[in-house]
Amino acid sequence: MKKVGVALLGVGTVGGGTYTILKNMRETFKEKYQLDIEVLHVIDKNIKRTNELGIDPKIVSTDIDNVVNNKDIDIVCEFFGGIEPAKSFIIKSLKAGKSVVTANKEMFAKSWLELEKAAKEGNSGLYFEATSVGGVPIVRVLNESMQGNEILSIQGIFNGTTNYILSKMIDDGLEYETVLKEAQDLGYAEADPTADVEGYDSMYKLSILSTLAFGKRVPIEKIYREGITKITKVDIEYGKKFGYTLKLLATAQIVDGKLEARVHPTFIKNQNPLASVKGSFNAVLLKGDNVGDIMLYGRGAGALPTGSAIVSDIIYAAQQTKHKLIGFSEDKFFDDDSFAKDFSCEYFIRMNVVDKPGVLAKITKVLGENNVSINSMEQTAQDGNADLIFMIHKTPESLVKKSIAEIKKIDVVNSVDSVIRVM
Amino acid sequence: MKKVGVALLGVGTVGGGTYTILKNMRETFKEKYQLDIEVLHVIDKNIKRTNELGIDPKIVSTDIDNVVNNKDIDIVCEFFGGIEPAKSFIIKSLKAGKSVVTANKEMFAKSWLELEKAAKEGNSGLYFEATSVGGVPIVRVLNESMQGNEILSIQGIFNGTTNYILSKMIDDGLEYETVLKEAQDLGYAEADPTADVEGYDSMYKLSILSTLAFGKRVPIEKIYREGITKITKVDIEYGKKFGYTLKLLATAQIVDGKLEARVHPTFIKNQNPLASVKGSFNAVLLKGDNVGDIMLYGRGAGALPTGSAIVSDIIYAAQQTKHKLIGFSEDKFFDDDSFAKDFSCEYFIRMNVVDKPGVLAKITKVLGENNVSINSMEQTAQDGNADLIFMIHKTPESLVKKSIAEIKKIDVVNSVDSVIRVM
Repeated sequence: MKKVGVALLGVGTVGGGTYTILKNMRETFKEKYQLDIEVLHVIDKNIKRTNELGIDPKIVSTDIDNVVNNKDIDIVCEFFGGIEPAKSFIIKSLKAGKSVVTANKEMFAKSWLELEKAAKEGNSGLYFEATSVGGVPIVRVLNESMQGNEILSIQGIFNGTTNYILSKMIDDGLEYETVLKEAQDLGYAEADPTADVEGYDSMYKLSILSTLAFGKRVPIEKIYREGITKITKVDIEYGKKFGYTLKLLATAQIVDGKLEARVHPTFIKNQNPLASVKGSFNAVLLKGDNVGDIMLYGRGAGALPTGSAIVSDIIYAAQQTKHKLIGFSEDKFFDDDSFAKDFSCEYFIRMNVVDKPGVLAKITKVLGENNVSINSMEQTAQDGNADLIFMIHKTPESLVKKSIAEIKKIDVVNSVDSVIRVM
Repeated sequence: MKKVGVALLGVGTVGGGTYTILKNMRETFKEKYQLDIEVLHVIDKNIKRTNELGIDPKIVSTDIDNVVNNKDIDIVCEFFGGIEPAKSFIIKSLKAGKSVVTANKEMFAKSWLELEKAAKEGNSGLYFEATSVGGVPIVRVLNESMQGNEILSIQGIFNGTTNYILSKMIDDGLEYETVLKEAQDLGYAEADPTADVEGYDSMYKLSILSTLAFGKRVPIEKIYREGITKITKVDIEYGKKFGYTLKLLATAQIVDGKLEARVHPTFIKNQNPLASVKGSFNAVLLKGDNVGDIMLYGRGAGALPTGSAIVSDIIYAAQQTKHKLIGFSEDKFFDDDSFAKDFSCEYFIRMNVVDKPGVLAKITKVLGENNVSINSMEQTAQDGNADLIFMIHKTPESLVKKSIAEIKKIDVVNSVDSVIRVM
């Protein structure tokens, strides 16, 4: 029986969930995997919390050296969140030859290269299934099941909070602010919801997953990001009418040999399997050149789903005789030229104009001059003004932006209220 | 660079697809995995086929000894299908220390124990991702991503042909025979469709996957099996009316400590994520005690999706320093008492009766005496007869069967046309 010593850095929601799973399943793991996994140290300053979990105070401290210098500790699991001290503690552990399992997407997305260097130095492993889409085993699938494919695209709903909010807006016809407030009251959204609703959380995950999928570093600076805070129920209603569901979609794909990566609100067709991903569920849709479309669906957050991913990484790490790294030291991971400067998709544009003859001609003239081709148009007049909805054929984003800047300058255009990408 | 010698037993559709992927991606695999994978021998008697694939005639034969005695061959991939000679060839290869990768679900489901014994003897690996749900990496996910869970249930649409037929019947309002004929003409269904439409194919996959999920041998004899050949468009229309979609669903779950496994046509609620799996797509829905619901969705068949699974297994096998087996020699895999003798679900029952007073009373009396409780009832009269549709609350199958046997004996009952389980 192989003994596996584990340290937990932080035993809050996910760390506590992990502690509980490890304790409850210890005998199962002995029997199933011949691994005796024991938590030997916990770094946490919240003694009330460690006591409530029934953790022996003798193994609790706030000093990472108690972990790094303990020869019986093989695997360090980090649950602090944020950049520091998580990053320093992880690097110290890796250099000391301890494998690290982390759920910290922001720190990981920003510091992966440094972490991998430290892991190489310490001959240790670096596991991060829990950083990306919680309980959905997308990291393992990309690493261990897609070898016979070139990945053409990875797309998904990576954030449960925003998907909950959008689903509620769609189903109950409510405005964003109303649903956000409700989500905050229920604990589904943070008091400061920025990381979720502005798309940062999805962006970190997309950075990690697209780096794996394409074998090329996709830093967060290369990802276009736009949140859901400006979405209105009017847009959602029009979308419904045209057969679309609104999602905060993360997309990375190779188009004409260039990589494009973006996170933004997106109208997707109701037939798209991602359209049926409701509430706080997440999903990832992969396209491989041989396997075609594959979708993985599940809980993207929560103590137990994320704990499940952490525990899977612990056992996986404990079973390796030689840890695999992705190979960040190689040149192929860094190639600035391989990113697309622009991208194309369909668009939904809603604007408000003065309702008088000749207005439409002025707007369509601008669109035509910019090679922006209209798929369909709808007009709703009210009080001397009119709402105009344009569905635009696939067009480069740069041309759409240029057109809109020009349209905004037309005297009879009151406002351009929404520009939503359609896929 | 590690050299990996591969033998292919059969280069028909999937074997040929695998040969093509291995050839086209050879340089990629060298670069990405430091593995130089080369096909060193092909067993196939169809010389026309091997020539068309551009395989050097010098490495083609029909003698398995050319594989077994070739020390440079590390991995044997089997694509024959059927029981023999696939089984003998695989056992011979395993005993000779060669790892085996197979897509042969029937042989694997029936002979897993013998194969694992041979693998143990030869210290070789046994890989079978491609047996179950083609390109969907469910075997790897069960083995490498669910360690922190007790699996509570595994459920899915495991057969593309039947899902295509049922989807067509639902969308176009056609009868089974019409759609089957069309599917055969298009090459989506075999000339002899029995293995698909009678549920054998799904049963083999369920046997393999539930054995993995529950760590307990689930032989095909323990799986209740019923095909889709008796499904009519009338049933499908009634299902639609009640908010259900009809699927050939495979289910294995633990209920009250007992394992039940079954494959049969099932009405599932439209909100169930499996309901949106259309056409030839497949899906697997897992429930873990910690991770909750996870769904994997993708192509269950076809040369390239299945080839993708095979190639993934080849690379995975080549990277192992010690092959893991599931441990069939252990007692825990064999426990006849742990299977449920009966199971409970909701039911849809359609019967035709003589339309006269007192008929309903006779039928509901039988149901009541057997503790079968009616959720809703609908009646459509025509030409002196009437169709009766009962939706039945969750009830043990044994009681439903007993009731139906009694109802059939009532003189005013013309026929009991359909009994469909509802989940």
